[in-house]
Amino acid sequence: MSEATKTLEGWYALHDFRTMNWALWNKADEEERAHALDELQTLWEQWKQTENDNQGSTVVYSIIGQKADFVIFHLRETLEELNALETELNKSAFARFTIPTYSYVSIVELSNYMTKPGSTEDPMENPEVLARLKPILPQAKHICFYPMNKKRDLQDNWYMLSVEERRGMMRSHSMIGRGYAGKVKQIITGSVGLDDWEWGVTLFSDDPLHFKKLVYEMRFDEVSARFGEFGSFYVGNRLTPDHLKDMLK
Amino acid sequence: MSEATKTLEGWYALHDFRTMNWALWNKADEEERAHALDELQTLWEQWKQTENDNQGSTVVYSIIGQKADFVIFHLRETLEELNALETELNKSAFARFTIPTYSYVSIVELSNYMTKPGSTEDPMENPEVLARLKPILPQAKHICFYPMNKKRDLQDNWYMLSVEERRGMMRSHSMIGRGYAGKVKQIITGSVGLDDWEWGVTLFSDDPLHFKKLVYEMRFDEVSARFGEFGSFYVGNRLTPDHLKDMLK
Amino acid sequence: MSEATKTLEGWYALHDFRTMNWALWNKADEEERAHALDELQTLWEQWKQTENDNQGSTVVYSIIGQKADFVIFHLRETLEELNALETELNKSAFARFTIPTYSYVSIVELSNYMTKPGSTEDPMENPEVLARLKPILPQAKHICFYPMNKKRDLQDNWYMLSVEERRGMMRSHSMIGRGYAGKVKQIITGSVGLDDWEWGVTLFSDDPLHFKKLVYEMRFDEVSARFGEFGSFYVGNRLTPDHLKDMLK
Amino acid sequence: MSEATKTLEGWYALHDFRTMNWALWNKADEEERAHALDELQTLWEQWKQTENDNQGSTVVYSIIGQKADFVIFHLRETLEELNALETELNKSAFARFTIPTYSYVSIVELSNYMTKPGSTEDPMENPEVLARLKPILPQAKHICFYPMNKKRDLQDNWYMLSVEERRGMMRSHSMIGRGYAGKVKQIITGSVGLDDWEWGVTLFSDDPLHFKKLVYEMRFDEVSARFGEFGSFYVGNRLTPDHLKDMLK
Amino acid sequence: MSEATKTLEGWYALHDFRTMNWALWNKADEEERAHALDELQTLWEQWKQTENDNQGSTVVYSIIGQKADFVIFHLRETLEELNALETELNKSAFARFTIPTYSYVSIVELSNYMTKPGSTEDPMENPEVLARLKPILPQAKHICFYPMNKKRDLQDNWYMLSVEERRGMMRSHSMIGRGYAGKVKQIITGSVGLDDWEWGVTLFSDDPLHFKKLVYEMRFDEVSARFGEFGSFYVGNRLTPDHLKDMLK
Repeated sequence: MSEATKTLEGWYALHDFRTMNWALWNKADEEERAHALDELQTLWEQWKQTENDNQGSTVVYSIIGQKADFVIFHLRETLEELNALETELNKSAFARFTIPTYSYVSIVELSNYMTKPGSTEDPMENPEVLARLKPILPQAKHICFYPMNKKRDLQDNWYMLSVEERRGMMRSHSMIGRGYAGKVKQIITGSVGLDDWEWGVTLFSDDPLHFKKLVYEMRFDEVSARFGEFGSFYVGNRLTPDHLKDMLK
Repeated sequence: MSEATKTLEGWYALHDFRTMNWALWNKADEEERAHALDELQTLWEQWKQTENDNQGSTVVYSIIGQKADFVIFHLRETLEELNALETELNKSAFARFTIPTYSYVSIVELSNYMTKPGSTEDPMENPEVLARLKPILPQAKHICFYPMNKKRDLQDNWYMLSVEERRGMMRSHSMIGRGYAGKVKQIITGSVGLDDWEWGVTLFSDDPLHFKKLVYEMRFDEVSARFGEFGSFYVGNRLTPDHLKDMLK
Repeated sequence: MSEATKTLEGWYALHDFRTMNWALWNKADEEERAHALDELQTLWEQWKQTENDNQGSTVVYSIIGQKADFVIFHLRETLEELNALETELNKSAFARFTIPTYSYVSIVELSNYMTKPGSTEDPMENPEVLARLKPILPQAKHICFYPMNKKRDLQDNWYMLSVEERRGMMRSHSMIGRGYAGKVKQIITGSVGLDDWEWGVTLFSDDPLHFKKLVYEMRFDEVSARFGEFGSFYVGNRLTPDHLKDMLK
Repeated sequence: MSEATKTLEGWYALHDFRTMNWALWNKADEEERAHALDELQTLWEQWKQTENDNQGSTVVYSIIGQKADFVIFHLRETLEELNALETELNKSAFARFTIPTYSYVSIVELSNYMTKPGSTEDPMENPEVLARLKPILPQAKHICFYPMNKKRDLQDNWYMLSVEERRGMMRSHSMIGRGYAGKVKQIITGSVGLDDWEWGVTLFSDDPLHFKKLVYEMRFDEVSARFGEFGSFYVGNRLTPDHLKDMLK
Repeated sequence: MSEATKTLEGWYALHDFRTMNWALWNKADEEERAHALDELQTLWEQWKQTENDNQGSTVVYSIIGQKADFVIFHLRETLEELNALETELNKSAFARFTIPTYSYVSIVELSNYMTKPGSTEDPMENPEVLARLKPILPQAKHICFYPMNKKRDLQDNWYMLSVEERRGMMRSHSMIGRGYAGKVKQIITGSVGLDDWEWGVTLFSDDPLHFKKLVYEMRFDEVSARFGEFGSFYVGNRLTPDHLKDMLK
């Protein structure tokens, strides 16, 4: 039995991917559309208010390609709040014009592979740690989301490695990430026991080419090369209420 | 040929996951909705009565994310009763507004890896055992469900291990579970010959972070690390009839 | 090149799984429903007549969970007859209320791993063998169906074993089955070249717990442990025309 | 780098599997049905004419089970002609009552593992070879179609074998096929670069049991046992315009 | 940790696969159809204008078989432009008659396995390189698209090889490609961090048999044989606005 990695958790996360029902939307008259967009606007203002109150954070991005038209990415203190957000959207006039395509439930996570052994500091007292566990999501131009596992396949079994082996590999892995400091902002959310993969990775950048460069460079690192299993990748552009209205007008 | 593990079985289980057909629900008028909710309420009272009569147990939880909006989890003495519950729901006015998304058929199971060899006690005479085989489901704030297999992949083949090897690993595995006593209540249901995975695991807790901590810690244990194969994870919040009406109003 | 196992074949089999379109059914008026059930009743009587004429056999079972609401399991002399049965059902007023969910095409099969080498008896002249190849399906309370393959995965490759190795393992495998004589009746149908798995297994029992006990015990046997690959499991309760009417009323 | 096998190619192939939309068909009135069947009949006569002109070949078979109700299997000189056939069908009144379920794009292929090394004959000048590359499809009572790959899995990697190893195995493989001469007619179509599997196999026989016997016997041969990967199997009965009208009346 | 391959990137790519909703199209009257085709024509002229302005490139091909009826393949400078193209199409009268079936997001990529070590030339200053990174798509008669990965499976793990091993294999791989110079034009687009596979391969040729010959020959090369994982293959015929009108009339 290998020693489990210690983790710290912050806000719960819901990624809610949807497509427009374009047939319905294109058939709707001006009044129906205006009503739908008004209800969405009202919800959006509530999400903004929650963020201003430091009780959570929400961003909306369009998605390129047919997997979805947009994603709403919420962070909140509890699963009850996330569930309420879903239900409010589903009951809105806007939701009538959307079709759910994928969702992901997780919780912001920091793994302390890097903590100095013997440290007596309580990380939850550290403001920098708290800011990373309960972050205000960045307003970058682009988003990239993908879920992932650590492999458990015969001799390539991450969970059978010693904590020292894992720590060594994660250190070299995080070095790559540091090379993208200032270019890519990364939010890791853990989803063991919450959703179908072990982690969700959400990247933010003003240049989507950084997503490709970062993920590709990491793929040659032993942690990803031998142990990374990846789900679907979603990439998109930031949406404001005005962009969305423009997109749907 | 390896020796099969002895198991004890209690009530049959049906996990019935559904989403709301929000388009239909949002379009329905007050009367149609009230009628639908009334029929659900009547069914719910019958489920409660069955539980009061100690003939089974039923709980309802909302599900976070798009996999489902809620799950109805029934325990009953026979498959005939479970089938009748499904059919009654399907014929109700409420079901018209729901879409089935996933279900799981299994039976409450205790594996006696832990039984003292040579014990002459009949476990089915033991009231504590009976209470675990035919349990009243807890009213915890949160639920977590996932199906799982023991792997049979070349040298990682659980079913080719000797009973002693399996017993040794299960002992260390159950130690982790005991660390969560009082925090997480676990119902194991067996589904070999009944559904697509070998077991269903249903966890109950007042804090959903315990689900993540427990499942993650177990993943480093050899039983899970080498031999665990996991299906989809569903996590949710407890629903009472009042919560549900509130959610749907 | 390993020696292929000899097999004997009898009637062709079609498992036809369907769900009710409950939305449509619940909306239909009494007359439409009565007409649909009448047409089903007529078909059912024809199936019964075929069985009385010893030209085939048909049973109908409800299925627990969302995979299907019921299965119609036909045995007939030819694929033409099975195709005609499908088409007649599809043209009936009843079929309008059903949605196909899964089907399986196969042929009743006996593998003669057990035949004494050097025997000169023609097994097709043996009435006991014929009765097993063209069986009248039992009226047990419960059914269990699953398709399966023998694995061909690197060193776990059934088809690369010698006929002696295969015979030895099958012997111990069939010993487990014999322990359930009188409790579980088993129909093996071969589907190599006919459908997506190599075999279909249909079990009948008055106690569904026997399905779980039998399949679980076999899983520790090398034939299943190393070489068994299993598809979806369907379990259900016997339906008579009266049960079905009761279920749908 | 292993030496690639030489192949010869003939007509392009399209297998077009469809189900009837029975709900729509059963609701249509006599006139609509007659009109739909008339348009199909007209297309069918054109397919026949093409065959008479030796410009291609087309057969239609019903499919047993829910995967499809029928398959139209076309051979033509160019992809443009296959595409035109699809579009004509899709624009017909008959297509309105059908739902596409699967298709396969490939090209008739002969691999010359068997060519005598050093032969100077141009095989495309050989009338027997040409007849096999541009065949008139047989009017057998039954069809069986499945796609397949040669495996590339660690030490079971067909494409890493030497041409001599591959030739030796293919020779023993083709011996099995010869045992079915006169019973089963086989059309191999290559689909590397054209569709999702590497080959399509279409078998024709007056007795569908031959499909099972042939494919099962081959499975014990090293080429299939170690290297064969198989997709879905479709089996069916020959349809003439009269059979089809009978089936749909 | 292995050294990552250097790559150069050009225009972003969107492959947008769709089928016609034939039921709707066949039911539409002449005016609706004309209006839909007019709106498509207008979009097509804008795509052409962008290409004339050297700001991107767009081609349209029909697809053989049921996977799609056609693909629109766009190259543009930014993800914002690709997203706008999608949205404009979705809002058009033509889109109402189409159903999205698959899409792929990537970016034109050159990997410089072949760059002379020690070269000080900036490849982005090289006009030939730029022309390959921002290409005008060819007007060949046929297209072939497929996505692919390099395998990471135990000892067959591309990303654990040294850069020298990878370079050596890629050299022999590219030799095969050169044998098709003048017959097949190939566009490689990278999609690590952008979509579900690591690369998209788009081939153009006047003879679709070249697709089969090229991909098949490469399959025996170690890079593909041991390390290639392939998704679905789409093959089609060039469409001009006139062809499309002809196809839909």
